[in-house]
Amino acid sequence: MSQDSENTLKVAQQAFEHFTRGLATGEWQNFLDMLTEDFTFWFPIGKFQGWNQGKERAEEFFQYVTACFHPGITLTSLDRVTSNQTTVVFEFQDEGLLLGQPYQNRVAVSFSVRDDKICSYREYFGSDGKP
Amino acid sequence: MSQDSENTLKVAQQAFEHFTRGLATGEWQNFLDMLTEDFTFWFPIGKFQGWNQGKERAEEFFQYVTACFHPGITLTSLDRVTSNQTTVVFEFQDEGLLLGQPYQNRVAVSFSVRDDKICSYREYFGSDGKP
Repeated sequence: MSQDSENTLKVAQQAFEHFTRGLATGEWQNFLDMLTEDFTFWFPIGKFQGWNQGKERAEEFFQYVTACFHPGITLTSLDRVTSNQTTVVFEFQDEGLLLGQPYQNRVAVSFSVRDDKICSYREYFGSDGKP
Repeated sequence: MSQDSENTLKVAQQAFEHFTRGLATGEWQNFLDMLTEDFTFWFPIGKFQGWNQGKERAEEFFQYVTACFHPGITLTSLDRVTSNQTTVVFEFQDEGLLLGQPYQNRVAVSFSVRDDKICSYREYFGSDGKP
């Protein structure tokens, strides 16, 4: 594995830890600190469906996620991690409450890394969120 | 990259070519020939939502896909390929007609490789299929 790939994996793994902690607790600051100013993200459904740009938009999004999934989403299984020189994909399963109703999903998130930051991320759903 | 990883990537790339050709043309035989007998797959929605097991079930599924998306789904962009020793994830965009209505999606498919075959695959959707 080249040095670039190793750094990409290391940065993305750190970001993923902060990401899952954000999902679980609503504390997103550590994750937000790892985003570039021109960060973009793609989300599958709802108010933020599609392409979103900017760190402020990301802050708004993660506050919205925490509001929808109160008191938090638990990562139940990290199934696979794949990578290349610039991108790392995490396949995982999670569960929690979505607006008070039981929620389970299989998710793939794809983080793109630039230097020591995350410059974009895409989220893909493996189910429709129903257990 | 280790020899295992190189073989995994090579096998999965071949399978992905057959997979996208199947989507485009309905000719699935080359892809089916690359599946292990105990092949399993996970699909997000519809009749085959959830976990499915066996090559026969896979044949039934791909016939169903072709029937729903007549005359075929076109891969419009292969965005990223990530891998590890056993798994390769393809992020791509596609479009076509779903039961006659315009359909676009962003998809992540994750192929697990054993020797020269695909032993499992998971599909994740990045949008709800509406353009």
